[in-house]
Amino acid sequence: MDATYEAWTGPTAGDTVGTAGELAVLDRIVRRLPAGTPLLGPGDDCAVVAAPDGRFVVTTDMMVHGPDFRWAWSSPADVGWKAAATNLSDVAAMGAVPTGLVIALAAPQDTPVAVLESFADGVREAVTALSPGCGVVGGDLSTSATFTVSVTAFGDLGGRPPVLRSGARVGDVLAVSGELGRAARGLARLFREGVDPQGEPSRAATVASGADTDPDVARQRRPVPPIADGPAAAAAGATAMLDLSDGLAIDAGRLARASRVTLALDADGPLDATRPLDDLALHGGEDHGLLATFPPDVALPGGFRRIGVVVDRGAADLVRGGAPVPTTGWDPYADWDGAAG
Amino acid sequence: MDATYEAWTGPTAGDTVGTAGELAVLDRIVRRLPAGTPLLGPGDDCAVVAAPDGRFVVTTDMMVHGPDFRWAWSSPADVGWKAAATNLSDVAAMGAVPTGLVIALAAPQDTPVAVLESFADGVREAVTALSPGCGVVGGDLSTSATFTVSVTAFGDLGGRPPVLRSGARVGDVLAVSGELGRAARGLARLFREGVDPQGEPSRAATVASGADTDPDVARQRRPVPPIADGPAAAAAGATAMLDLSDGLAIDAGRLARASRVTLALDADGPLDATRPLDDLALHGGEDHGLLATFPPDVALPGGFRRIGVVVDRGAADLVRGGAPVPTTGWDPYADWDGAAG
Repeated sequence: MDATYEAWTGPTAGDTVGTAGELAVLDRIVRRLPAGTPLLGPGDDCAVVAAPDGRFVVTTDMMVHGPDFRWAWSSPADVGWKAAATNLSDVAAMGAVPTGLVIALAAPQDTPVAVLESFADGVREAVTALSPGCGVVGGDLSTSATFTVSVTAFGDLGGRPPVLRSGARVGDVLAVSGELGRAARGLARLFREGVDPQGEPSRAATVASGADTDPDVARQRRPVPPIADGPAAAAAGATAMLDLSDGLAIDAGRLARASRVTLALDADGPLDATRPLDDLALHGGEDHGLLATFPPDVALPGGFRRIGVVVDRGAADLVRGGAPVPTTGWDPYADWDGAAG
Repeated sequence: MDATYEAWTGPTAGDTVGTAGELAVLDRIVRRLPAGTPLLGPGDDCAVVAAPDGRFVVTTDMMVHGPDFRWAWSSPADVGWKAAATNLSDVAAMGAVPTGLVIALAAPQDTPVAVLESFADGVREAVTALSPGCGVVGGDLSTSATFTVSVTAFGDLGGRPPVLRSGARVGDVLAVSGELGRAARGLARLFREGVDPQGEPSRAATVASGADTDPDVARQRRPVPPIADGPAAAAAGATAMLDLSDGLAIDAGRLARASRVTLALDADGPLDATRPLDDLALHGGEDHGLLATFPPDVALPGGFRRIGVVVDRGAADLVRGGAPVPTTGWDPYADWDGAAG
């Protein structure tokens, strides 16, 4: 057994995926997943999902052990939660209501089946909490030297046009829903305190330092994207929207370039009653909030709050108090440090 | 650079995914992929795909370096072809016409961008050859220690009910479309002759032995599923159908159990004019033909040919000349030998 699993399963975890066989593993996983209400669920070569308005939105995202998570820092259930939550967030960012997920998972042969069961529990907990009624309609199990999860999610636009990144207009209000910077603050603490003397991710150090129970670390492990605010924004007339996966600044830059506008952050605006628009909030990724623009006369729906305004295209994508804000964030290829943890 | 790439890229392949950065890599890949005709293509958090009859079918399948392919035996373009073809086959097996693919890909940082470009070329070649008009509507790029591809495919049922595994009726004709056993024969030759003296997969040995130009090896690398025969079977009234991914016998067993019938193979029936129903044809996987049942009065469409008949549920799932045929095949968890090649 890979020692990095033991913190979560104990040393006597029972069957592994290699000893149990594909059918037994599948049977044990599927019963823990949320079934949703597909027209046809698992068991045939495809599932069949309703698309009431004759279209569906679709997104896919892969999470890989190493660059995307470490067993020393995240439990299998945390990984299941995050894999579901991040894809649901991309569906919401189009203004759509999630209608289904398919999950492909590849695990080393020595992975305890209990790890996959916990992963499935995390998927179920996320879907139940964030998008009740949605479900996992299909999947695939493989073996790999590297634990890998690939989720594809679908959604229904309810007859509305999809909300694109390219629709922001000068004069629109720039607004955000969801927390900013907490996931990055949690990750920073893990990198600082959740490591052994050689700097490798360590479950023991994470527990001993108190990081294990830090609410920011919990957000890093289990982001809470405001899924319902996506379709609510679309219904309210949002002109542009995207999911804040890589950080407010870099994602705002994407929206600005796609819409050929400049986004002007309110010079002294806080993010909410308690949090300033600090560097972590601007450049920290993985919060999976929603950034959207609304016509100026719209009452902001749900958890959206104003953080700025859309202005004519200038030299910079994003400005604050007249000064450019670097639209930098997380690049999985350039930033990965290769730590295995 | 991983030495196993060099056979395909040469020693001076230029940029790697680590040095080029995500955006540059994406740009170079996307232009090589077939665009298809989504309502909204890549560039936002989701794509939007038409579902004309208010439903869509969906399937997902992951291919992992090691258990599913080896660079010593398959080129990056071969892997792209196979990843697309196997998913298109699952869509066809429901009686649906493929309408789109999304592809998540994770590669080691030292992977030459040229490898991903060739992968994209293979995807395009497969889609163009097997399901013209279909396209890649979205994707995701990640880093991983293990080269991993996850494809999700969609399809349109054209107003027909999906063809399930469970619909076979006593008296139906059992028929197959596509070749049987060739992919397994090719793989067997690679395992026998495409290895170095230590038994590790070897590009040099594959070339030196002549296996590299063996038409059966070509089928192992680039299966040619009869995609159009899927919707043709549905239109002709097929009562049950599935994709032959793991072998005729094991997949026939799945259909028999789902339909609660026994499948009786014609005792002396050949597979086609030139091939007997030998062990490879019965138990070799990865051909991705279609197995279907039709009412006895139906003229078999497309490339379908009769191989048996559906009889009352007996002691065995599959019989031939009154004797049970073992419904065994490929189990990715139980059968993987862990060779890295």
